[in-house]
Amino acid sequence: MKDILVLGAGLSTTSLIQYLLNNSTVYDWNITVADLDKNLATKKVHGHERGKAISFDINDDVASSKTIAEADIVVSMLPAFMHHLVAKKCVELRKPMLTASYATDDMKAFDEPAQKAGIPILMELGVDPGIDHMSAMRIINRIKNLGGEILSFYSFTGGLVAPESDNNPWNYKLTWNPRNVVMAGNGVSKFIQQGSYKYIPYYRLFERTLKRKILNYGEFEAYANRDSLSYREIYGLKDIPTMYRGTLRRPGYAKAWNVFVKLGATDDTYKIENSENMTYRDFINSFMQYEPNVPVEVKLQNYSEDAADPVVFEKLKWLGIFDKRKIGLKNATPAQILQKLIMEKWKLDPDDKDMLIMQHEFKYRLGDENKMIVSAMAIIGESQEETAMAKTVGLPLGIATKLLATGKINITGIQRPIAAEIYEPILKELESFGITFKESEYLVDAS
Amino acid sequence: MKDILVLGAGLSTTSLIQYLLNNSTVYDWNITVADLDKNLATKKVHGHERGKAISFDINDDVASSKTIAEADIVVSMLPAFMHHLVAKKCVELRKPMLTASYATDDMKAFDEPAQKAGIPILMELGVDPGIDHMSAMRIINRIKNLGGEILSFYSFTGGLVAPESDNNPWNYKLTWNPRNVVMAGNGVSKFIQQGSYKYIPYYRLFERTLKRKILNYGEFEAYANRDSLSYREIYGLKDIPTMYRGTLRRPGYAKAWNVFVKLGATDDTYKIENSENMTYRDFINSFMQYEPNVPVEVKLQNYSEDAADPVVFEKLKWLGIFDKRKIGLKNATPAQILQKLIMEKWKLDPDDKDMLIMQHEFKYRLGDENKMIVSAMAIIGESQEETAMAKTVGLPLGIATKLLATGKINITGIQRPIAAEIYEPILKELESFGITFKESEYLVDAS
Repeated sequence: MKDILVLGAGLSTTSLIQYLLNNSTVYDWNITVADLDKNLATKKVHGHERGKAISFDINDDVASSKTIAEADIVVSMLPAFMHHLVAKKCVELRKPMLTASYATDDMKAFDEPAQKAGIPILMELGVDPGIDHMSAMRIINRIKNLGGEILSFYSFTGGLVAPESDNNPWNYKLTWNPRNVVMAGNGVSKFIQQGSYKYIPYYRLFERTLKRKILNYGEFEAYANRDSLSYREIYGLKDIPTMYRGTLRRPGYAKAWNVFVKLGATDDTYKIENSENMTYRDFINSFMQYEPNVPVEVKLQNYSEDAADPVVFEKLKWLGIFDKRKIGLKNATPAQILQKLIMEKWKLDPDDKDMLIMQHEFKYRLGDENKMIVSAMAIIGESQEETAMAKTVGLPLGIATKLLATGKINITGIQRPIAAEIYEPILKELESFGITFKESEYLVDAS
Repeated sequence: MKDILVLGAGLSTTSLIQYLLNNSTVYDWNITVADLDKNLATKKVHGHERGKAISFDINDDVASSKTIAEADIVVSMLPAFMHHLVAKKCVELRKPMLTASYATDDMKAFDEPAQKAGIPILMELGVDPGIDHMSAMRIINRIKNLGGEILSFYSFTGGLVAPESDNNPWNYKLTWNPRNVVMAGNGVSKFIQQGSYKYIPYYRLFERTLKRKILNYGEFEAYANRDSLSYREIYGLKDIPTMYRGTLRRPGYAKAWNVFVKLGATDDTYKIENSENMTYRDFINSFMQYEPNVPVEVKLQNYSEDAADPVVFEKLKWLGIFDKRKIGLKNATPAQILQKLIMEKWKLDPDDKDMLIMQHEFKYRLGDENKMIVSAMAIIGESQEETAMAKTVGLPLGIATKLLATGKINITGIQRPIAAEIYEPILKELESFGITFKESEYLVDAS
């Protein structure tokens, strides 16, 4: 018998908890779901005989240590910045730990301690990061085993609204952390192309998009992720001349979002004075020159060529940025104000479904031939609870938990799912949930 | 007899130390100049009978406390980030302290301790911050005493090359901390205009310049300083509808510098891979799209409309950004690479002179009339040692030290020179050094 402890019962935990409960009888597991809000945990367990809901606060040192000490495996779905608190206890108490979050520097610091404690801390087990690693590594290892040389790797992921629920001018709704949407790309975006390092400054990022058609889901555009360079080492492609990771949106999104970037409306480094009593119209006006008697709409079209495009202007107007409606947020940064607005306007309706879409593109040389592999996946959510995001985050994490619980994974330290012993069984079982990649292979012509 | 301790003997301390030595016999002072590099201190003292040079390291706790304990007044010309270490000891040992640097939050934390210890910590006693405060407060208090209402305050300062040494296409040379020149405006710039808060995002800052003719020194352009808003409180102008502080350059500078801003070449948040072996040409190319067989010069003109302006392009070319010359800096940020380049190209020649220029513009209502006061100052350096910068930083600081030493200032805590008892005698004595403002007053017409 194994006791599996799930920390956090928030939005994206439904599929994970359901998976673990579904497997609990066969494998003889007890599933404890722990959350600050015990009611939320109770709801997720929904009376399952193998499930238990408890109240949990990682900052309550004594109680949280006791809870973790009673578990055999700990799955942390807490906000990412709390993982290091969980990791500290898991190392002390020698409990294997799993998360869907990035192996950040503060987590990597637990690599050696976890190795010494003889426990694995498996990370990046969801989607972007997660399924992207697994599906990429499967192809990379296959090409390498054939003796091929990988020349370029483009990889795109997007969390979007499903086509059947896509009914606003941005063709976008929030299916994930809204703060991440506002802050996307803030900084510099790095990649390498034909051996040349490329650095895109933030305010040009949304101009330098790539276009892609994916499966039968129509057209998308992609903007570069912040750090494509570090994936060369993670994927064992140290000398690859081209490596680019991007985020997918529907065409036209980037050009309109860029108006906010260029206004400075996504800045999170300072607070707007008197933001509470400002209207959204004042907010937009505050980034532009003092020109009394010129309407904000006209100023904005003079300020930004993009805003003057009627398709873009329609998107902006639809968001309500010209409304004389009070923001009502005290001491807010521009980014916080913009986030409040999009959380209202880009909200999923109760019947809306989300979509998770991913495409990998490899070029490689095998003998005398240059070839290309395109591998793509699209997952549509089933409901507000069983979203594509919850499935693609929760199921690989659940399967990894099963592999650990059944002794199929024997590694220690901080680990990403890049070894075949981890990604093969996960990808295989994901297929039974309809999470599959469609792969095509082409010959690349010289002309 | 008083023992005055000057910490730091760097570039901008010449005028300060000379002023203190010149006054030492009359006022019965001993001047100790302390620097990590004792030779530098010895050079500044140049054998004066009242002067002494010593070796000093603020991080050597015991020795530095002993040195400070032996002084009656401490003038810190150390790098700004070290002032808090000096302040801690000055509070403990109850020694009055003076600096030319900003009263940052970590310094403001010493306000109460200094008050309790009964000592003043006089800050912002140089130029921008310093002379700008004093000359502004003199006019502000005069207008207030007349019963006038101040409607707007524009204030501009620039450290530039003197007209007689102005012989490069940028009309600019480095007369001050080069890192500050590269990082200028990085972030957001805030001001208020006719009651409307205005926030200029960094990459638009150098487009939104104001033009000014100042004294008989010809034309200048100004870009907004980062935080004009906080000066409302400092100057006792809490409800002023318009408050703008700007930095002066010669016309055309901003448009050319903006090319670097828009490339992302002033970013200091990440390191360029393999920067050591890159050329300046590679560096510029790394911010632009991969387009083989297109010259970098052509790419840049396509990338930036500004760069396509032949006057701007000439400036860029002159800086050597298209040269196939190795950068030779390991693990460098873009900002560090750009700083290396401008330190070579914008260096003052041995005979070059610098210029410090400042202009305040007040509009105010007095009875039925709206009036305007324009007050301007221009100081030309005398030599590489006696620069305009060294004089305008060192002399007000030296005079303030004299006021303290002779018991003319009786305040405690962190203080800026905004009280008449401080600024009046300083401004008056500065006149004897040729540091004077020329003031004009106008009636403002309604049409």
